[in-house]
Amino acid sequence: MNELVFVGLGLHDEKGISLQGLEEAKTSDHVFMELYTSLLPSFSVERFEMLTGKKVQILKRYDLEEQSGARILDAAEESKTVFLVPGDPFIATTHVALRIEAEKRGIKTRIVHGASIISAIIGLSGLHNYKFGKTVTIPLPENASETPYNVITQNKKLGLHTLCLLDIKTDEKRFLHINQALTQLLNTERKKKQGTTTMQTIAVGVARAGSTTPTLKADTIENLLTYDFGDPPQSLIFPGELHFMEAEALITLAHAPASLRSAAK
Amino acid sequence: MNELVFVGLGLHDEKGISLQGLEEAKTSDHVFMELYTSLLPSFSVERFEMLTGKKVQILKRYDLEEQSGARILDAAEESKTVFLVPGDPFIATTHVALRIEAEKRGIKTRIVHGASIISAIIGLSGLHNYKFGKTVTIPLPENASETPYNVITQNKKLGLHTLCLLDIKTDEKRFLHINQALTQLLNTERKKKQGTTTMQTIAVGVARAGSTTPTLKADTIENLLTYDFGDPPQSLIFPGELHFMEAEALITLAHAPASLRSAAK
Repeated sequence: MNELVFVGLGLHDEKGISLQGLEEAKTSDHVFMELYTSLLPSFSVERFEMLTGKKVQILKRYDLEEQSGARILDAAEESKTVFLVPGDPFIATTHVALRIEAEKRGIKTRIVHGASIISAIIGLSGLHNYKFGKTVTIPLPENASETPYNVITQNKKLGLHTLCLLDIKTDEKRFLHINQALTQLLNTERKKKQGTTTMQTIAVGVARAGSTTPTLKADTIENLLTYDFGDPPQSLIFPGELHFMEAEALITLAHAPASLRSAAK
Repeated sequence: MNELVFVGLGLHDEKGISLQGLEEAKTSDHVFMELYTSLLPSFSVERFEMLTGKKVQILKRYDLEEQSGARILDAAEESKTVFLVPGDPFIATTHVALRIEAEKRGIKTRIVHGASIISAIIGLSGLHNYKFGKTVTIPLPENASETPYNVITQNKKLGLHTLCLLDIKTDEKRFLHINQALTQLLNTERKKKQGTTTMQTIAVGVARAGSTTPTLKADTIENLLTYDFGDPPQSLIFPGELHFMEAEALITLAHAPASLRSAAK
């Protein structure tokens, strides 16, 4: 049957895929994969090919953005085609256009979901999902922008937490680190002076969500600037108002200063 | 080794678990599971036991909320214990207290993430993840509240989308349906008159996210009130400002009226 199945690879390595996703790959005629929208630090294409018994065709940004995924669409017009994507397939908005184009060409599409960095980081932190406002990506230095600072400020005014993803360019092996992201926010603070991101502001750094050894640390920005989070990917959370159970979670799970307890409600 | 591993079951059935999660269950001394924080419509405990070769102990709300998960904690103090939870384990905030208690007792804890309803619904809709504001749950009629209306209104003022989860009581086999949720919001509109949720407002209904046959429909509330979404679980999205690619996604993937195009930016 001709169809295009988007399968989420989840986080970290080739064992992040669901049983359903693995079955789809095993039963498909063509298997494509991209590994540039997110970092899967320990993913091995060879091991994945062993698991599925299928040859995997790796697509680059060029294939999808310049060529509009023509190779995938052509394959899916004639046969069952699986497209493997890190995380949950449409959280990186990159592939929505491909799905729309497939549907317009009359190709049936389906999604097999995978664990997403979004829910993973929220879960690791112990903070309450329904207290997060808008998510933002902090760009690499050459694209530095005031937007992340403004999003954090707006969310804080509403008492909400902000999840900040840190930009990556996996094809160039470049990843924004937590200390660079904090420096970028402090630079904006210096201009805008709204007090959202000072040396004494509490933030939560998260590294390697989805691996067996994630690092989580909640502290003042001053202390986080010199904290060693180890390998990427890295992310940040700026807490808004804390429920007492959330403060407890940050103290126990992210080694936050115990003084956080008195700020909670 | 004594440790407590929280494993996400993902969505829909027993094939939503990741390969890593399955391996954790196979190599653990005790396997506990709860199926009350979310609905996994086609999950079979028997099939899951076949897959893992382990006896699964099902816990009820009482075991976790009244008894504070004592059975899990006692097991994890002496041996490797896996706790299987629908979706991504900590998106339902219910289990954060259990994790904190385990850590305080000196039990090492880990998370193996699963696909979450949060990222699944956003992905299915084709809307951009970073344009969602605060998420809200619309309660069952006996707990009807103005909060969901207020959250939608606040997000809309900021141009943001709102993801609305619809409350479920799986132990009583009760699920809020999309038309009931819309009626509840229209009742609040009648009192507050802020124009956020009128008969002409566009919303997106999503049913059975994570299954092979999800239903997605974007339309005016007037039309959605009588649309048949089929079996639960069901959810709603209230779009804020739409990027033209998001409008295109709703038209192609959720059969929205083509007039949506002219409202997009």
